Amino acid sequence: MTTPPTPDLTAIFAHIDAHRQDYLDRLFAYLRQPSISAHGLGIAETAEHIAGIMRPLGLEPRILPTAGWPMVLGARADRPDAPTVLLYGHYDVQPPDPLDQWLSPPFEPTIRDGKIYARGVGDNKGQHLAQILAIEATLACQGTLPCNVKVLLEGEEEIGSPRMADFIRAHRADLAADLVITADGPTHESGQATLNFGVRGVLSFELRARGANRDLHSGNWGGIAPNPLWTLVHLLGTMKNDRGEVTIDGFSDHVLPLSPLERAALDALPVDLAEVRRRLDLAELDAPTDRGFFERLSAWPTFTINGLHGGYGGAGSKTVLPHEAFAKCDIRLVEAQTADDVFAKVADHVRRHAPGVEIVRQGSMDPSKTPMDSPYAAPLRAALTAAQGAPLLVPALGGSLPDYVFTKILGIPAFGTPYANADEANHAPNENLEVERFFNGIKTGAAVLAHLGALRSRVE
Amino acid sequence: MTTPPTPDLTAIFAHIDAHRQDYLDRLFAYLRQPSISAHGLGIAETAEHIAGIMRPLGLEPRILPTAGWPMVLGARADRPDAPTVLLYGHYDVQPPDPLDQWLSPPFEPTIRDGKIYARGVGDNKGQHLAQILAIEATLACQGTLPCNVKVLLEGEEEIGSPRMADFIRAHRADLAADLVITADGPTHESGQATLNFGVRGVLSFELRARGANRDLHSGNWGGIAPNPLWTLVHLLGTMKNDRGEVTIDGFSDHVLPLSPLERAALDALPVDLAEVRRRLDLAELDAPTDRGFFERLSAWPTFTINGLHGGYGGAGSKTVLPHEAFAKCDIRLVEAQTADDVFAKVADHVRRHAPGVEIVRQGSMDPSKTPMDSPYAAPLRAALTAAQGAPLLVPALGGSLPDYVFTKILGIPAFGTPYANADEANHAPNENLEVERFFNGIKTGAAVLAHLGALRSRVE
Repeated sequence: MTTPPTPDLTAIFAHIDAHRQDYLDRLFAYLRQPSISAHGLGIAETAEHIAGIMRPLGLEPRILPTAGWPMVLGARADRPDAPTVLLYGHYDVQPPDPLDQWLSPPFEPTIRDGKIYARGVGDNKGQHLAQILAIEATLACQGTLPCNVKVLLEGEEEIGSPRMADFIRAHRADLAADLVITADGPTHESGQATLNFGVRGVLSFELRARGANRDLHSGNWGGIAPNPLWTLVHLLGTMKNDRGEVTIDGFSDHVLPLSPLERAALDALPVDLAEVRRRLDLAELDAPTDRGFFERLSAWPTFTINGLHGGYGGAGSKTVLPHEAFAKCDIRLVEAQTADDVFAKVADHVRRHAPGVEIVRQGSMDPSKTPMDSPYAAPLRAALTAAQGAPLLVPALGGSLPDYVFTKILGIPAFGTPYANADEANHAPNENLEVERFFNGIKTGAAVLAHLGALRSRVE
Repeated sequence: MTTPPTPDLTAIFAHIDAHRQDYLDRLFAYLRQPSISAHGLGIAETAEHIAGIMRPLGLEPRILPTAGWPMVLGARADRPDAPTVLLYGHYDVQPPDPLDQWLSPPFEPTIRDGKIYARGVGDNKGQHLAQILAIEATLACQGTLPCNVKVLLEGEEEIGSPRMADFIRAHRADLAADLVITADGPTHESGQATLNFGVRGVLSFELRARGANRDLHSGNWGGIAPNPLWTLVHLLGTMKNDRGEVTIDGFSDHVLPLSPLERAALDALPVDLAEVRRRLDLAELDAPTDRGFFERLSAWPTFTINGLHGGYGGAGSKTVLPHEAFAKCDIRLVEAQTADDVFAKVADHVRRHAPGVEIVRQGSMDPSKTPMDSPYAAPLRAALTAAQGAPLLVPALGGSLPDYVFTKILGIPAFGTPYANADEANHAPNENLEVERFFNGIKTGAAVLAHLGALRSRVE
């Protein structure tokens, strides 16, 4: 493979700058349409709305039913010799509660201090609309696209993408592509652009311990009837030690070591630990402190107790021996762990150490990681540099997204090119997106199409 | 000391049998008077009521103020050469809630199937009234008492006896006695009479752990920001192991080994472990299983987590990293532990293992134990045998009562001679006392006075 030529983006960037008000008007119209998947509110109208924007671009959008809310899928194949990129996003939004904390109505976009405030502006309407407007701008300037494009917009991301994996399996041919790009989430706190190569997976489960068939008097029964709180304390103590190491048998069997590229990328990510501690009022960070901030987030699984409850919780004291207790937990997974395998190991561990404790599996997503030496890494990096400046490279995000459906079911590399500001307040009141970032997002989308097109023929 | 003569109780028992209806009427009148210390209801009237019963018996009752509800104290000294016994009880009762679960009104005593149903009938009006009626019966038959008697009735036992220790310290001379007897609580489950020599103490405290200044996303912060639930799990894991052994440094330094008499007494207490497990739906009892049922309750301190709460507790899962958690705990203390010393050790342990965790002391009572070879053990045993049949001997109850004020402040031996049925439902709806047990209680009281009187001169 030879180095592709550098596309000239001058004209297209000028076109984008010249149409700022139009793009903003189109964004505002899209944001005014509520689409709350958790409440089933405005879903059909919003799917129609975005399909209506895609249609004049020759994307031939289809609204495809699922067992839940529908997917919107469009495609346009202009260059058989160029790669096909699948752009993924979601048109649903989080509920806006608590409403009384919004400074302007969540579905009435408002600009204050250079930021657009509206539910879904960053997560995710603004970010995928920018990609679609990049197609429009490219067509306006060039009449054709430099690569092939598919656009997939989900309507259930905010309720956990329950139908995503099945949909992908059922539409392999429709979704066939060389890579997938998701523009969602914030950039690095510094404001610098990021190119993300992966996400951690997640596995949620609940441990339920039971003692006697009713609460008992601690003086008459303490030390005689088993205490489900002690049972959970001792069981959990066998699962992670106070040095922060997960001690479930076999837990780290499949954890892949960092590649030199990943190690270098993590070391290059800036972090001000003193500022982190100050902001969270923390005297020190959690063990093991010899692991770097981003190494912990990207390279290691974590085991979090999300909640633990049992017995008396009121004021003062009550000498009761509780009869039941539960712990809700999540494990963040890294390559090449799988939720199924880790759950089996956790369940085995629980059976061995506390046979009376019930374990209930809840939601899960497998991790996803695209090699940093993927042939698409360089053009994407160049595209981001052209539109936003040189990006930070993130081997894997600490959080979880269903990227595994692309890397593990479709078998294609997956990249994240988020451009929201770090304080976008997604899922919270006063969600916002800096105005300039929206335009930079359109430019990023156009640069991505151009740089992928410059590859000329598919990269194997 | 020579063996005292055995008193002849025939006449006095016949007198008691002949006056059953009168005694029952007196009990019912006392029970009709509510005296709910928690609500301040009927306290003064009830103190006057019981003083009015004591006055004709030459007990010269006084209603002595405290910072809370008053004490009723009476005394009669007939025999300078005989021991002085202090009879302790409490005239206050638990609130009767939930009212709708009572089959008859709590302050309208009702007999059904040989049981008297009323709030306070067993805990404790019926039991101390029987002791007072025993004085009346003895005087009716003999004109004088065979030993010296003091009667102390508290009005705040059901709210934790907050003024008891100070009152005892302030009235040492008034309360001077050779021994104290409390008739409260139930007999053994078998129905057999019991003679109790002690109680465990109790120390309640709360552990409070804090992480960041707000809840965080487990994917972005798990393994970086400390999790207060893991902090508590690991701290508690250092305080008691899964073999049931408390591992707080120095915790058992002052635990006195069982005397041969105590060991024999514990071994003689009947228990049907299969029935216990069946009743509580327990596959097995708590570790360490090599300790006997009553040995655990009497001879060992226990460490119970009464409640542990932190983070998400709703339905399903939530990938949150909680920012605070707390554990409420009690430790039951045995001789010669003290609440102050054990609290200091727990606080030291917490400081050493989890310096960020706050420990807040709550209520406490020291343990109390009277040696089983006390010179008063034999006459009390003989008295119980005469009235109710040979008693079981209990070195220490698992629960906690403020007996330490007698053994450690007054410095006199303390005994328990309860006679309520094991299913008396104290503190619960439909509190009850078997009718025959009330009369046996009066006989027990009379037998105690006679057998103590038979000692003739004070036992040193």
